[in-house]
Amino acid sequence: MLENPSRTELSSLGEFGLIEHLKASVELQNESSLKGIGDDAAVIEYKNKAILVSTDMLVEGVHFDLTYVPLKHLGYKAVVVNVSDIYAMNGTPKQITVSIAMSNRFSVEAVEELYSGILLACKNYEVDLVGGDTSASNSGLVISITAIGEAEKEEIVYRSGAKDKDLICVTGDLGGAFMGLQILEREKKIYTENPKLQPDLEGKDYVLERQLKPEARKDIPLLFKTLGIKPTSMIDISDGLASELIHLCKQSETGCNLYEDKIPLDTQTFETARQFNMDPTVCALNGGEDYELLFTVPITDFEKVKNHPDITIIGHMLDNHAGMNLVSRDGTQHPITAQGWDAFFKR
Amino acid sequence: MLENPSRTELSSLGEFGLIEHLKASVELQNESSLKGIGDDAAVIEYKNKAILVSTDMLVEGVHFDLTYVPLKHLGYKAVVVNVSDIYAMNGTPKQITVSIAMSNRFSVEAVEELYSGILLACKNYEVDLVGGDTSASNSGLVISITAIGEAEKEEIVYRSGAKDKDLICVTGDLGGAFMGLQILEREKKIYTENPKLQPDLEGKDYVLERQLKPEARKDIPLLFKTLGIKPTSMIDISDGLASELIHLCKQSETGCNLYEDKIPLDTQTFETARQFNMDPTVCALNGGEDYELLFTVPITDFEKVKNHPDITIIGHMLDNHAGMNLVSRDGTQHPITAQGWDAFFKR
Repeated sequence: MLENPSRTELSSLGEFGLIEHLKASVELQNESSLKGIGDDAAVIEYKNKAILVSTDMLVEGVHFDLTYVPLKHLGYKAVVVNVSDIYAMNGTPKQITVSIAMSNRFSVEAVEELYSGILLACKNYEVDLVGGDTSASNSGLVISITAIGEAEKEEIVYRSGAKDKDLICVTGDLGGAFMGLQILEREKKIYTENPKLQPDLEGKDYVLERQLKPEARKDIPLLFKTLGIKPTSMIDISDGLASELIHLCKQSETGCNLYEDKIPLDTQTFETARQFNMDPTVCALNGGEDYELLFTVPITDFEKVKNHPDITIIGHMLDNHAGMNLVSRDGTQHPITAQGWDAFFKR
Repeated sequence: MLENPSRTELSSLGEFGLIEHLKASVELQNESSLKGIGDDAAVIEYKNKAILVSTDMLVEGVHFDLTYVPLKHLGYKAVVVNVSDIYAMNGTPKQITVSIAMSNRFSVEAVEELYSGILLACKNYEVDLVGGDTSASNSGLVISITAIGEAEKEEIVYRSGAKDKDLICVTGDLGGAFMGLQILEREKKIYTENPKLQPDLEGKDYVLERQLKPEARKDIPLLFKTLGIKPTSMIDISDGLASELIHLCKQSETGCNLYEDKIPLDTQTFETARQFNMDPTVCALNGGEDYELLFTVPITDFEKVKNHPDITIIGHMLDNHAGMNLVSRDGTQHPITAQGWDAFFKR
């Protein structure tokens, strides 16, 4: 992938040259972006709105593996991960800054690939790339993105507002990104052992896309408005359902019952898990990287959410003393524990 | 430095544990910080002000060397570098986010040292740490900071507003940070060759402090108000005077005359340069990391700036066709070229 026939060395441009080069392809689309790349700081103006700021860092060898992740997809995903956090506050992302550290094994063409993914995501999510930093790195690629968004102050949804009896809802389906990762890791292993074998990815397009090109739920804050809902708490699912639900419960000081048979799984996720001899529920609970939204609504909103195809009610909050429980298909209760995707434990 | 007798492994806390641990020492001090660490995004409110956003990434082995940079100083400097960009827009920094990638060679105590420097800078610059990310790294330490600040829209100073005949001014003195770096590099080399020798840092306290614990010019935007000045253009000096002046000229579409004999140098900077057989002027022009402010004012402001001890007039802008010139002590003109500190060229 990095062995581009027309390879331009980064050192031939230098840092300022690289910034100038990349800047040429950046266009501002939001009225609130007063000044983008090219000064000491970007200038933004949100009239009478609160400002939301979220930041994430992706590190090669920890969060991604360039053996099977194309740079364009990586750039796209890096933006998605960040704007997802703004949607999880019930806000609208408007700007991002992107800082990148990379070694000189990357060519200018490779950096362009990465930025083409970043800029495609900017277009799709209607955010402006307004600043950043580029740096050399002695080893791997590091991408740090900060997303900035706006919201009416009274519309912001925190993790901490859930109450006893609130319904626990999730968008889309879960566990797909994790199963996509399992397939990519398996094929990498096979390829390493025998580079002549072609990767077997047939019929796995959905779970692979969930892993390689996830989308953030831009549509959901708008849907809430249409449905006349303001969730009492919300979080995006980056580390797995179990871990995120624990965050909501702890910060809201509630317990919960989560019903195993309600957790939404795509057929492909289910079948792939079975092929890997994994429990599909465990994949959804601990898998992560689905970037769906987990939220709670008062039970009085039941009629508003119950029939929406993109929303599944998976449980309800309880009093703080009731604990956090997974109610399995046979009706037995198990305490929910976070075995989320934790970079420090993975090592 | 990292061989702390009471060493706690990062893996014993995990990512969430580490965040909880660090969060305990963070207090919000600004009214505009509505919500800090602990949700999907920080929430900020600037009433009727524009938002300034700047971001910088520091990479081990490229921007700093842990052989001689204490972690606390590194944390402090990482914040200074970022808030300096907000002052360079004539704004006031209010919040920062801090993302860190580090390998498990760092202990919890080492991370605490780093954050103690970050939090000390937050206190001194009156900014709140409102969010961030912690991640594992397969190799070196990477610190990515985003600074967010506010300004009255009409008070913001860009790089692009300078006009022919405007006076070029600089705060403080230049080249000190670069000379401090030379001393540290020399002593590292000596120590590597003979670990029994003690470092010889006597009489170098000023230049060492300029390198290890620089300060941003928080006082200058306030001084402008007192003096009744609004600069026509401004930039902070992170890459060296030459490189920054070129930025102002290019973006303002002006030429300039910079007078060598006017460039402010501290005696210690001058003497250290001589000891290293370096030209002190070249050190000031290309050294970087001084975090002083370079700005232009209309010639009609001459009386307001001429006698201030913290401001030196070092030249004036010219018509775009006049070129960018260094006028040396003997009156000859040399074109100014950027040989600033460029991470890609250093490699």
